[in-house]
Amino acid sequence: MTFSQIAIIGLGLQGGSIGLAIQEYLPEARVTGYDLDPATRARAAERGLCHTVCESAEEAVAEAELVIFCVPPGAIGKAAKPLREAIPPECLVSDVGSSKKRIAADLAQALPDHIVIPAHPVAGTENSGPDAGFASLFQGRWCIVTPPEHTDLLKLSTLVEFWETLGANVELMSPEHHDLVLAVTSHLPHLIAYTIVGTASDLEDVTQSEVIKYSAGGFRDFTRIAASDPTMWRDVFLSNKEAVLTMLQRFTEDLTALQRAIRVGDGEALFDQFTRTRAIRRSIIEEGQDDSRPDFGRSDHVKKTKKS
Amino acid sequence: MTFSQIAIIGLGLQGGSIGLAIQEYLPEARVTGYDLDPATRARAAERGLCHTVCESAEEAVAEAELVIFCVPPGAIGKAAKPLREAIPPECLVSDVGSSKKRIAADLAQALPDHIVIPAHPVAGTENSGPDAGFASLFQGRWCIVTPPEHTDLLKLSTLVEFWETLGANVELMSPEHHDLVLAVTSHLPHLIAYTIVGTASDLEDVTQSEVIKYSAGGFRDFTRIAASDPTMWRDVFLSNKEAVLTMLQRFTEDLTALQRAIRVGDGEALFDQFTRTRAIRRSIIEEGQDDSRPDFGRSDHVKKTKKS
Repeated sequence: MTFSQIAIIGLGLQGGSIGLAIQEYLPEARVTGYDLDPATRARAAERGLCHTVCESAEEAVAEAELVIFCVPPGAIGKAAKPLREAIPPECLVSDVGSSKKRIAADLAQALPDHIVIPAHPVAGTENSGPDAGFASLFQGRWCIVTPPEHTDLLKLSTLVEFWETLGANVELMSPEHHDLVLAVTSHLPHLIAYTIVGTASDLEDVTQSEVIKYSAGGFRDFTRIAASDPTMWRDVFLSNKEAVLTMLQRFTEDLTALQRAIRVGDGEALFDQFTRTRAIRRSIIEEGQDDSRPDFGRSDHVKKTKKS
Repeated sequence: MTFSQIAIIGLGLQGGSIGLAIQEYLPEARVTGYDLDPATRARAAERGLCHTVCESAEEAVAEAELVIFCVPPGAIGKAAKPLREAIPPECLVSDVGSSKKRIAADLAQALPDHIVIPAHPVAGTENSGPDAGFASLFQGRWCIVTPPEHTDLLKLSTLVEFWETLGANVELMSPEHHDLVLAVTSHLPHLIAYTIVGTASDLEDVTQSEVIKYSAGGFRDFTRIAASDPTMWRDVFLSNKEAVLTMLQRFTEDLTALQRAIRVGDGEALFDQFTRTRAIRRSIIEEGQDDSRPDFGRSDHVKKTKKS
């Protein structure tokens, strides 16, 4: 029980990785793809992200049993609507968007005749575009599937199996809860990283060259996250506004408390806060969700880059 | 022109790395060490962090031409004061602390008869203690030296050469400017990371297990930084209070602006902010200050960890 014909709309980091992962781990399936941008289509064909890169979305989905939209959250409704006739009636429609409540509503509205089961693989890098994808992106990562109530259970389990075949662990969740969880594990961290990198670029008394030179003190980690795709992240924040603002409010309260501790010189409060954050790091490593090597294991490579 | 006898007080990540780096890159020098904690001394001896791990600080510094204090910023004055008689008169005194103005004052007060030239290698990992150090820690990293006015120029240039021998690039700076630069490139990022990891641990509607599972969406990066040594970071914030609070104020203003953009749905403002942060990442990689591989190159290793 699997999909033998899969169409990917949008051939960036996620779409490209899915195309490559299908060819690697589900070689019996045929994968077609389409991207609005002709240059991306050309590059996708060169890299072989799909068996066939089509010249229209209609052509890509024509024989699909599964269509996965891999476009920015804000573009999904617009990408899906014109395909209402072209997508076969029995075809399952899914996506990879980082927010789920709004996307589920957009897809349901754009494709009222189809079964839609949204999904979100929690995996990525700071790179984007047709050169960014790789087959192993989903290995050992979680994919959250947010089925609507009373959905087609056979299609749901086929989708779950599909993601497991690509290497992911699958979890089912309501779209509302997904949006809250991701607001804290992904959206808020990105917002904070974008902010601090902006702050550091705008100072009068510290030059940009100094910020770059001494970034190994911690700042450079934030610049990686803040190098993520701007279009996608704009859409994430606009489509998950409520949960992001809630989490941001909590963060601001906590930051204000630490600010006060610094101002009044309350070393004990600082020490307590800094001690209890260590346990969560250990758990993340134990669960295989991060590299156990110090500094993500990157030091050696930087050194080599520097010397060469 | 170099130091042939070096004493390290404090054998954690920094002290241990200096000891190992001296043995690797400056093999003609002899290095002694001391740590207040007997268990750390025992482990340091086992790992061979120094040629001799002494049972007292007095013994360690007795014949030193250079003493480097590698203890938390708040402990430097207390560690240095009893050594006023024991440190030879011609010996240069330095340190590796992350804040400089306060440490310079503490050292000058504790050792009024000695020449003190503070320094700060901008290098580290999230690990601490006698097992954390490694010889290549300073390779390709910057070391900021903050000489007092009218300092001994021969000693200054010997210290600069010492750090260059250990692999670092050296920059001279006033302690005041150092504290401002590091407030933005290191102290603020740590404060933010500690805060967000605390926020995520404290939610009622999202469980800790969910935070851990879906941490690959960005959160896990912050947990690495927030796993750093609590004692040291408490002291950093208390000893660089003014500059940290200034930078935090700037950050909060910028965050408030982005919060507003999300609330009113100003996609253009978000997109603009998210676009201009990419350039600084590119510069950091070009300058050899970070790994150019996506996701710090860590994905493969996580996968292997997971599968084994």
